[in-house]
Amino acid sequence: MAKVKIEIYRLLEKIREQKPVVHHLTNWVTIYDCANVVKVLGASPVMAHAPEEVAEMAGIASSLVLNIGTLTVDFINAMIIAARSANKKNIPVVLDVCGAGATTLRDTKCFELLDAAKITIIKGNASEIARISGESVKTKGVDAGDVTVNLADLAVRTAQNRHCTVVITGKEDIVADEKRCYRVKNGHPMMANVVGTGCMSTSVIGTFAAVDSDYVHTSAAGLVCFEIAAELAVQKSQGPGTFKEQLFDSLFSLNKAAIDTMQKVES
Amino acid sequence: MAKVKIEIYRLLEKIREQKPVVHHLTNWVTIYDCANVVKVLGASPVMAHAPEEVAEMAGIASSLVLNIGTLTVDFINAMIIAARSANKKNIPVVLDVCGAGATTLRDTKCFELLDAAKITIIKGNASEIARISGESVKTKGVDAGDVTVNLADLAVRTAQNRHCTVVITGKEDIVADEKRCYRVKNGHPMMANVVGTGCMSTSVIGTFAAVDSDYVHTSAAGLVCFEIAAELAVQKSQGPGTFKEQLFDSLFSLNKAAIDTMQKVES
Amino acid sequence: MAKVKIEIYRLLEKIREQKPVVHHLTNWVTIYDCANVVKVLGASPVMAHAPEEVAEMAGIASSLVLNIGTLTVDFINAMIIAARSANKKNIPVVLDVCGAGATTLRDTKCFELLDAAKITIIKGNASEIARISGESVKTKGVDAGDVTVNLADLAVRTAQNRHCTVVITGKEDIVADEKRCYRVKNGHPMMANVVGTGCMSTSVIGTFAAVDSDYVHTSAAGLVCFEIAAELAVQKSQGPGTFKEQLFDSLFSLNKAAIDTMQKVES
Repeated sequence: MAKVKIEIYRLLEKIREQKPVVHHLTNWVTIYDCANVVKVLGASPVMAHAPEEVAEMAGIASSLVLNIGTLTVDFINAMIIAARSANKKNIPVVLDVCGAGATTLRDTKCFELLDAAKITIIKGNASEIARISGESVKTKGVDAGDVTVNLADLAVRTAQNRHCTVVITGKEDIVADEKRCYRVKNGHPMMANVVGTGCMSTSVIGTFAAVDSDYVHTSAAGLVCFEIAAELAVQKSQGPGTFKEQLFDSLFSLNKAAIDTMQKVES
Repeated sequence: MAKVKIEIYRLLEKIREQKPVVHHLTNWVTIYDCANVVKVLGASPVMAHAPEEVAEMAGIASSLVLNIGTLTVDFINAMIIAARSANKKNIPVVLDVCGAGATTLRDTKCFELLDAAKITIIKGNASEIARISGESVKTKGVDAGDVTVNLADLAVRTAQNRHCTVVITGKEDIVADEKRCYRVKNGHPMMANVVGTGCMSTSVIGTFAAVDSDYVHTSAAGLVCFEIAAELAVQKSQGPGTFKEQLFDSLFSLNKAAIDTMQKVES
Repeated sequence: MAKVKIEIYRLLEKIREQKPVVHHLTNWVTIYDCANVVKVLGASPVMAHAPEEVAEMAGIASSLVLNIGTLTVDFINAMIIAARSANKKNIPVVLDVCGAGATTLRDTKCFELLDAAKITIIKGNASEIARISGESVKTKGVDAGDVTVNLADLAVRTAQNRHCTVVITGKEDIVADEKRCYRVKNGHPMMANVVGTGCMSTSVIGTFAAVDSDYVHTSAAGLVCFEIAAELAVQKSQGPGTFKEQLFDSLFSLNKAAIDTMQKVES
């Protein structure tokens, strides 16, 4: 593996200048955090799930984020309408397969979504992506279960099968498409002690995807920014409560110097 | 325009003494913040949306707050039941026309709400109120689009058409009824960097409306309190994350001296 | 009344070691806080409410938490499915009768839940538990109304009628089963100035119930931990906003020394 320097700050600047609308159909637990992380990045979040308006709302957005954390059958149907509208407009669709492997409903609906529309970026933890890829694993609710397969292989294989970009988050993150595989080694264990960091990272990926179409690059860039902000936030906080607020502050004021000196991306 | 001194602290004291119940049917993104801002003002928030109970819940409340941010058809129907119950009991109904102008569903449902029940206070940003008033504008998701009309004229005209109080929030806020027009010039740009300040200001307006029936006065008073608290919070915070927590702290302990010296209201 | 020393830290250690999955069907206002309080205790929250998956999700959990704060008819039906699945698997079911006494729907649905499945622990404030017990009281939205009956008697009587553990939270908390009655005297008035502490305490009770089956003991232990964390948080905060973040920090790092010296339990 070799260290690679990817241009990240330029993408963050584009977000802050263009203020793209990022449309979400997401879960009810972390919906505020997902909206707020998009806002502090400088973009414009909109959360809308009524089947009568999702196609129109996706039409004024620059990217679409789907998260099945608190799915229902009706909610998935609205996601499909929104994703197809996004496909027509050719804007990227990010899917967080939150909890895949935990119940039959989640597995079935993930496959239904993946078959019903073009998903640009699939994102999950190791056991979720393994499940989507057809491996026999069990997810512990919405937290990762044990996965023994090589994660880089898993990511590339899933990307090839689904013709998309795949992000596996964890102690280190894997970002792969059919040909490339990056590893993002930023972040801090404190992120796992607070609810919402996983969902927020999906929204960050969706926000970066709104300003450039090299999705391996934008996904890695988004994760680097979010995780450097987390590293900075840990230094200014004493636990998971204060960490969350500092994370928003750090991301809001993230600058080129911090990104250039702290980014840890390998290929 | 002339500076006006309006009695604000007396209203805040009434809230803290009477602890009115403020019933909400609001969006799922900022529902916690809306409840919490009512609580830190000293009142008692209740969020209830089941069509079977909204009329009864509105009946034990002192005001009703409606916010269409994450509307569905069923949810709007529950709002109509609640609003009609509030009308019968003669308690004020505040409507945040969140996202009006972004989709056909939002426009249609706003007009349906406005026609189905007496709305006491309509609140939105410039492009939302322009849309409700019949102007041809486009809202960028839930963030304000460009509006070129004179906002004071727009507010008064909408108030006259709908026989209600109208609040347009923005860099400066307009509060108008059929005869009067106030401008509130408190607040801070940081408010726009965090999700929830717009929805919270609606809940604040609803809380102040619960203790007095001069709604131009109560709306301006609520905005002044909320925005002075924001000004104080900025001084104690380093970004949007810490700002939000300090905002709750500042509003909770807001006193007469701060209000009297910092309020900026013009007529 | 006599002071009793109960073993609390051992239970907290078990949570941190076993990381039990705590399944919730809860309200949309405080759903994030409920998930996060479980997470900072060291356990694994999962929020899932689709009727098609709740039985399966309850089946991989170690306890089930139900909270009717923003109930609908469909949501209660999903709760019943989840509770019956929990009963089959013999894991504890905690029910927060949030807002009982405020509307007919809430009363009816509480009784329906209590009759449809075995509820292990019923939790509410004084007026809510009084209402469930058949007393004629009125709840002020979701805040406690006036109750004149002896709360310890009320708790024990309700426990005997329903063959369960009963928790009444308030200035002091009552924890009772058919034979025992503890009082927890930890906590701080600041807890009443912020939305979510009541719901979070239910989730804490559910988390402690996941690791031991002496539910009077686990409920008291959970309340002691949560309320000591609140006492510590008050010392590090200036109002309800900063208090909430400090509460998560304090609970995350709560240690044996603090618990042993600060716990106030009487029998």
